[in-house]
Amino acid sequence: MSRIQPNFLRRFSPNERYLVGLSGGRDSVALLHWLVDSSYKKLICCHLNHQLRGRASDADARFVRKLADRYDVDLVIGSAKVRALASQQKLSIEAAAREARYKFFAQLAKRKRARTIFLAHHADDVVETFLINLFRGAGSSGLSAMREVSNRRIDNVDLTIVRPFLGIWRTQIDDYVRKHRLKFREDASNKDMALLRNRIRRQIIPYLEKTVGRNIRPSIWRTATIAAEEENWIETQLPDETAAELSVLELRKLPTALQRREILKWLRLRKISNVGFDVVENVRTMLHPDSRIAKVNLPRDRHVRRQAKKIFITD
Amino acid sequence: MSRIQPNFLRRFSPNERYLVGLSGGRDSVALLHWLVDSSYKKLICCHLNHQLRGRASDADARFVRKLADRYDVDLVIGSAKVRALASQQKLSIEAAAREARYKFFAQLAKRKRARTIFLAHHADDVVETFLINLFRGAGSSGLSAMREVSNRRIDNVDLTIVRPFLGIWRTQIDDYVRKHRLKFREDASNKDMALLRNRIRRQIIPYLEKTVGRNIRPSIWRTATIAAEEENWIETQLPDETAAELSVLELRKLPTALQRREILKWLRLRKISNVGFDVVENVRTMLHPDSRIAKVNLPRDRHVRRQAKKIFITD
Repeated sequence: MSRIQPNFLRRFSPNERYLVGLSGGRDSVALLHWLVDSSYKKLICCHLNHQLRGRASDADARFVRKLADRYDVDLVIGSAKVRALASQQKLSIEAAAREARYKFFAQLAKRKRARTIFLAHHADDVVETFLINLFRGAGSSGLSAMREVSNRRIDNVDLTIVRPFLGIWRTQIDDYVRKHRLKFREDASNKDMALLRNRIRRQIIPYLEKTVGRNIRPSIWRTATIAAEEENWIETQLPDETAAELSVLELRKLPTALQRREILKWLRLRKISNVGFDVVENVRTMLHPDSRIAKVNLPRDRHVRRQAKKIFITD
Repeated sequence: MSRIQPNFLRRFSPNERYLVGLSGGRDSVALLHWLVDSSYKKLICCHLNHQLRGRASDADARFVRKLADRYDVDLVIGSAKVRALASQQKLSIEAAAREARYKFFAQLAKRKRARTIFLAHHADDVVETFLINLFRGAGSSGLSAMREVSNRRIDNVDLTIVRPFLGIWRTQIDDYVRKHRLKFREDASNKDMALLRNRIRRQIIPYLEKTVGRNIRPSIWRTATIAAEEENWIETQLPDETAAELSVLELRKLPTALQRREILKWLRLRKISNVGFDVVENVRTMLHPDSRIAKVNLPRDRHVRRQAKKIFITD
């Protein structure tokens, strides 16, 4: 793996300054080692203490401190009360943790003037996320994979997210960690079978491979990757949705497939993420001239409303 | 279910002449009953004896004969040596059977001057097909569902395929069959666990629903249906591919996502179906100016070749 140098990385010169997400777990420890080994010099590791696992969380923070010292790279440790955020914002713990992390990354990106962050997501993450979204019915937009390079606007900061391991399997990372004798922190929550992701990783995928009789992960990975490229392209075909309001008449002119994508993109830009198929379809029913629906519920007590041929969001 | 009258059916007046696929199995028996009940009068049932199950196949033919007589509708019984076709054409039995069936439908459509056929595919078929394609890695094109109304050109005959049950679940068809006390033929091959479709139906989906903890079929059905609508739309955006040759220079101009779709559509029109992601990606590598690949293998000993900036198929 140390010889793998994905093509797209050429765009990110080792002499520039970058953020690196560093939880202290196996994947991010391997990523940091690999970046240092690939001559990336000006790295700023970002570690967010989620305060979810008490002493273990504090030990994680001490661990990444040592690691950063050994590699002689910068480190910023932040802290968030994820449990409180989750209950305030009516999100799952996982979703609240993710949101807190990206906010932390965006703050640092601004403060440190480094707008690009490396994250350690790998090929198995792609497959697991695909299956989670499929089973939850996120619609085809939820099927598209994370991308090797993507842009995200968080709190008015434009962050570029780079994932060099997206085509690398967990077993390859294991090999790499073993070969270089890297130490890392085990996250006990990875064994919590109450989390769908863990059941998918440890029960469902092994069962499917046995019952289908082949390694299905490469097929799912490809499907997700193709879907991401198609989504990329479809989004370039969408009309401008930066306005706070959507025009009913303009939306009506689009084919069904584009109506869905336009609504999703518009919601995402209004910071309504993780909406399922139902919300999008309900917004679409507002487009009918004789529709009686004038309000659609969103998470966190927000609503999509229709009035005077405009669609907009109210708190 | 007898009261369900999908919107799109309005386009198919009950007074016109239609073909109906009638295997004698539960789904097609329910479909025929439902069509007759919905006042479709000029029906021509099509039954193909696949000669795969000896006496049971002959008994199926006698069964559909009786059924057609009872409903007073026309019936044409054809016959195909599917096993021989499969080995000649290097196809699976399932794929050869499907191909033989569509050829038979196309012949009848021409002979009977009825270019529209009703088929009994239902919502569970959509879900099972989605999972088969996902596990086999058919790429996102293979994820798109069958459509309620689709057109297919077979041996120079344009056939319109209508599937009124695509939004109806197997259990609803069961209820319908029970309510109307319909008799049907059991197909022993539905219990053959050597077939991936049967393992998906009888083992994998029940396991997933138990382990995920929810009914995942509606989510998968929606995903497949959205993908079908997106595919529909994407295909309208593709350049003309009716020529026997693809231009390397023209293809190169397209974004990756459209290159794939264009190659798939072109292959399908050249009657190369069921190609996986690998074939499409190999054809795509031919587009690189410095590509050394000038030949890609297809099923049935055919090849895609590149010569003088053209891509074409040779036998």
